[in-house]
Amino acid sequence: MKEALLLTPGPTNVPARVLDKTALPMIHHRTKEFQAILERVNGNLGKVFVTKHPVLYFASSGTGAMEATVTNLLSKGDTVLSISAGKWGERYRDIARVYELDVKSFEIEYGKAVSVEEVRAALKAHPNAKAILITLTETSTAVVHPIKEIAALTRNSNTLLFVDAISGLCCDPLPMDEWGVDVVVCGSQKGMMLPPGLSFVAVNDRAQAAISTSTLPKYYFNFAETIKAMKKNDTPFTPAVSLIRGLDEALIMLLEEGIEKVWARHAEVAHYVREKVKDLGLDLFAKSPSNALTAIVLPADIPSKNLINYMRDQHGVVMADGQGELQGKIIRFAHMGWACTAKDAKTGYDAFRDALAKAGYARAQVVNA
Amino acid sequence: MKEALLLTPGPTNVPARVLDKTALPMIHHRTKEFQAILERVNGNLGKVFVTKHPVLYFASSGTGAMEATVTNLLSKGDTVLSISAGKWGERYRDIARVYELDVKSFEIEYGKAVSVEEVRAALKAHPNAKAILITLTETSTAVVHPIKEIAALTRNSNTLLFVDAISGLCCDPLPMDEWGVDVVVCGSQKGMMLPPGLSFVAVNDRAQAAISTSTLPKYYFNFAETIKAMKKNDTPFTPAVSLIRGLDEALIMLLEEGIEKVWARHAEVAHYVREKVKDLGLDLFAKSPSNALTAIVLPADIPSKNLINYMRDQHGVVMADGQGELQGKIIRFAHMGWACTAKDAKTGYDAFRDALAKAGYARAQVVNA
Repeated sequence: MKEALLLTPGPTNVPARVLDKTALPMIHHRTKEFQAILERVNGNLGKVFVTKHPVLYFASSGTGAMEATVTNLLSKGDTVLSISAGKWGERYRDIARVYELDVKSFEIEYGKAVSVEEVRAALKAHPNAKAILITLTETSTAVVHPIKEIAALTRNSNTLLFVDAISGLCCDPLPMDEWGVDVVVCGSQKGMMLPPGLSFVAVNDRAQAAISTSTLPKYYFNFAETIKAMKKNDTPFTPAVSLIRGLDEALIMLLEEGIEKVWARHAEVAHYVREKVKDLGLDLFAKSPSNALTAIVLPADIPSKNLINYMRDQHGVVMADGQGELQGKIIRFAHMGWACTAKDAKTGYDAFRDALAKAGYARAQVVNA
Repeated sequence: MKEALLLTPGPTNVPARVLDKTALPMIHHRTKEFQAILERVNGNLGKVFVTKHPVLYFASSGTGAMEATVTNLLSKGDTVLSISAGKWGERYRDIARVYELDVKSFEIEYGKAVSVEEVRAALKAHPNAKAILITLTETSTAVVHPIKEIAALTRNSNTLLFVDAISGLCCDPLPMDEWGVDVVVCGSQKGMMLPPGLSFVAVNDRAQAAISTSTLPKYYFNFAETIKAMKKNDTPFTPAVSLIRGLDEALIMLLEEGIEKVWARHAEVAHYVREKVKDLGLDLFAKSPSNALTAIVLPADIPSKNLINYMRDQHGVVMADGQGELQGKIIRFAHMGWACTAKDAKTGYDAFRDALAKAGYARAQVVNA
């Protein structure tokens, strides 16, 4: 069976080079051979996250790492500013609420990015806030938030900036140290070109200083123990050996290309998809669109499910429906990681146009592919 | 390079059949194809855990699942009885302390199993205890605890029995429902024949009833949400797709053999190793030895490190040193999962005897291999 083209916001297609490494015979994790892998991984993660600070990894989904940033850096009762404009921003907020933080929730209209002015006002209203919790790429709406400008506000304040870049890393630029972002969270199955199952957290000096003041309980996700182990190219608990061997290879591939070129490729492909969608006379849902995926507003009489099933069955192309109240109304056409090439985007667009044409959307029947 | 024979208490060798499945092209997790895999996995996990109750799984090390049993079933201030006789029992205790449970710690001499009388007395002294936290196979000492007899005490009491079977499952018998064990924790990289990265928790009706009364915070490891999702062959968060495809295959392999036969194979191989060790005139460290691994007390003048390095370099056989205060004094010769065969045990024994002989241990030089 031909491999499906996964143009979904994760999991994305994984290169054969990476899959092959994950299937190598098992090795023990407390060996020189595995330590050499961890040493290379630790170094290369810094280059991909564009930081000189440690990038921790865990066996978990991205959500586990989001939770870990709360339990390791914050305490019950801490004021945090949650900025959400979709499902993933809301998840960060909900995690903070579970741990009884004093969450000030700033909920932006779906489809929009938060404005720098809104963040400035929020910080002014809550100068004691320990952290801002925000998303780089909000995949439920395909919006990218202005992290660089927000970091310019937080980096000289006492408020830490936590960025959930689970879906955005490698797709939308996020030079952590240059911008002054304190915490970056990521998952493996998006721009990182890996199977799901690994999560990442980069913590700068300000964030690391917060570890010692946090009073929330934690055990498996323990940043202090993890950082200590990393210094010896070790892990506090048995690591996901096979996924980490895949990670090693994926990082090598990303650095063979160079992270700036990876960002540029995503920008080019995203631009192509957006222009094609406009040619079809359709609107983008995101006012501030991400380069990781494009959310396309469908004609009111064409439900997303029909298009998605048709693309899958006739073209072997998998795209995602909207989530929650957006279900049925938008299609999310992702261009992330390994599946972010001009060729894959063209295949995706052709499938989408064909599906629309079959569904009776006149303009898709006449627009030249 | 020839694959090393991993006779360590995890990770163990992974069958090629399983590795191949983990390296299949990525598929999306919210598809009929993946749901069919989850449906089969959910059914087969019950057969391997020998329970009709749900077996939950997470991307994490086994420690994450241990922690999850505390955060999902217990509350701050709850009295729990920790029974430990080595590093892993102590870990369960330490997790409970992190969450500020009222931990009554019963610390048994290393090398011994707890006696049923000791447990009976502990329960009598603390009739309000919410749970007993214990290990099936304590790999730091190679001891197996008498879980069947302990469950006979707890099953008609108000105290739940939590068993960390991370290393023991599939190696030492644990028919959960028949014995009346309430909670069974497992990891993927031991008897389950998988790479590390997945953890498991089986919860019977009594344990599930405790979910609603627990007040500890949790988000990623959420049993209620996980059980709800499992009913639809779904997961609350993106699952570790590639490892779960490997799990699917490993479960099929275990059930092709049959779980009772898997237990019998471990019993036979363990018996062989123990007899061979005695033939060499060496002592077993465990008074109540597990079938998952054998801890061998070394002659005082032969440090473990020399033997371990020699076996690795000359025979491609990897065994583990003692942990903590046992480091240097014992060797842990595991016979778990895929590497638990008569042939592998013979290879391991031959390597061990050769290493001992080279180290000048006279009896190893004369004993017939």
